[in-house]
Amino acid sequence: MRPTSEQHLDDDVLERHFTLGEIPGVLWAPGSASAPAPLVLLGHPGGLSAMYPRLLARARHAVAAGFAAATIELPWSGDRPRSAAAEEARADLVRALQAGKPVDDGIVDRLVLPLVEQAVPEWRAALDALLALPGIGGPVGWSGGVVSIGIRLAVVEPRIAAALLFAGSYVPRAVFEEARRVTVPLLVLLQWDDEGNDRQMALDLFDALGSEQKTLHANTGGHTGVPHFEGDDADRFFARHLRTGGPAGSGR
Amino acid sequence: MRPTSEQHLDDDVLERHFTLGEIPGVLWAPGSASAPAPLVLLGHPGGLSAMYPRLLARARHAVAAGFAAATIELPWSGDRPRSAAAEEARADLVRALQAGKPVDDGIVDRLVLPLVEQAVPEWRAALDALLALPGIGGPVGWSGGVVSIGIRLAVVEPRIAAALLFAGSYVPRAVFEEARRVTVPLLVLLQWDDEGNDRQMALDLFDALGSEQKTLHANTGGHTGVPHFEGDDADRFFARHLRTGGPAGSGR
Repeated sequence: MRPTSEQHLDDDVLERHFTLGEIPGVLWAPGSASAPAPLVLLGHPGGLSAMYPRLLARARHAVAAGFAAATIELPWSGDRPRSAAAEEARADLVRALQAGKPVDDGIVDRLVLPLVEQAVPEWRAALDALLALPGIGGPVGWSGGVVSIGIRLAVVEPRIAAALLFAGSYVPRAVFEEARRVTVPLLVLLQWDDEGNDRQMALDLFDALGSEQKTLHANTGGHTGVPHFEGDDADRFFARHLRTGGPAGSGR
Repeated sequence: MRPTSEQHLDDDVLERHFTLGEIPGVLWAPGSASAPAPLVLLGHPGGLSAMYPRLLARARHAVAAGFAAATIELPWSGDRPRSAAAEEARADLVRALQAGKPVDDGIVDRLVLPLVEQAVPEWRAALDALLALPGIGGPVGWSGGVVSIGIRLAVVEPRIAAALLFAGSYVPRAVFEEARRVTVPLLVLLQWDDEGNDRQMALDLFDALGSEQKTLHANTGGHTGVPHFEGDDADRFFARHLRTGGPAGSGR
C-alpha cells in the first residue's frame, strides 16, 4: 500500500489516498484518534471520482460516529484498465434496457460474476493493508453496493462482522444460493421506488439471506433518495455489532 | 374522564388508570414534567390486562424518550361488554384457521370493520380528554396495532401527526383503499416470519399507503419477536415528527 496524498478535512477527518498495486483507494479516519477505530468498507458501483462526493458524505458520517471508513476502485472502472468482456456485458444490458426487454440471466451473470471474482480478493488485500495501519482496527463492516460483492465478502472473509447491503443492482441466481450462507448480522436497504431495481427480487434476496439477525429498511423514493436518517441508523447498526463491550442488542 | 388510580413507578413514570364512560384506559407520563410531553397512543389487539406487561414496557420506553403514552381498551375486549357479531366472526376465523383453510374476505370484514367503526370514535374521545390534561401535549402519534384502526385514525384525525403501524393482523380490502388516503409520515413494522401474518399482504399494504414519507422495518422472527432496538428506532421516528423545532430530517 502506497500513500499518494493526505489532507486534514475541516471536521477532524484525516483523508488519505493510496494505491494498492494498480488499485486506487481512499481511507478516512479520525484526525486525532485514540483507540483503534473499527473499519467500515464503503461499497459503490465503480468510478471513484464520480462517486467521491457521496462516498465522502458517508465517510464523514462514519468517522463522526467513531469509525474509520475506506474504499477502493472496482475492477475495470474509473482509471483502471477496461475489460472487453465487461464492456460487452454492459453494452448488452444497455441494449436490453433501451429495448424495454427483460434483462436475461446470461447478461446479469456476465456482468456481475466476473466482477465479484476479481473484486473480492482485492478488497481482502486492501483489508490486510488497512488493518496493519495504526489507529485502524477490527472487527470490520461492509456498507453499500455492489450487493453481490458484499454477499461474497460476508461469506468468505471472517473479519467482516456485520454488513449493510444496498439492494440496488442486478443479482445473479448463483448469488441467491450464496446468500443462504451469510451468517453475519445484516441491515438491508431498499429504495421502494428505485427505477433501476426489481423490488420483488430485492425482497426475495432479503428472504434468501441466511443470517439470523437481519433487518430490512425500505423507504419511499428512487435509487439516490435514501433518507438522511438512514445514515444514523447505519451508524447505530455498526455500533451494535462492531464495538466490543457495548450492551448487546441495546440499540445504544 | 374519571381517574381510578395513580401510582409513581420507580423510574419517574406516573401511571394513571382512568375510565372514559365504560372504557378503561391507562396514561403514562413523566413523573416530574416540565413542558407538555407529546402524546403517543399505544395500539394493541384488545385485552388490556393480558397486554399490560408489554404495553408498560412500550410506555416506559416512550416516557424515557420524553413522550407521554396512553391506551384504552378495545370494544368487546377485556372487561367490556361482548358483541355477539364479533364473537361469531372470531369463531368463524378460528374454525377457518383450524381447518387450514384460507380466511375469506367476508370473515375479515365482519371481524375488523365493525371494530374500526366502534373503536376510532372512542380513541378520538380519549384524545380530547387526554389533551385537556396538564403536561400532555400535541402533536400526537399512533403506535402499534390494530393496523386498520391506526389507518382510519391517521385518515380522519388531524391531531395524528405520525404513525407507527404494526403490520400484523387481518386487513379488509376496504382498508387498502383507505390506506391510499394516509398522508402522515409512517414507520411500518413487519415481522418477517410472523406465523399469523400474510407477509405479501403486509408488503402490499405498505405499498398502498399514500404517505410520501414511509419506511418499512422488517426483522427476522415471529409475531412477538420485535428486536429491542426497534423501540429506540420508534422513539427517534416520533422525535423527528412530534417534536416541533427539532432539526428537520436530521434523524437526531
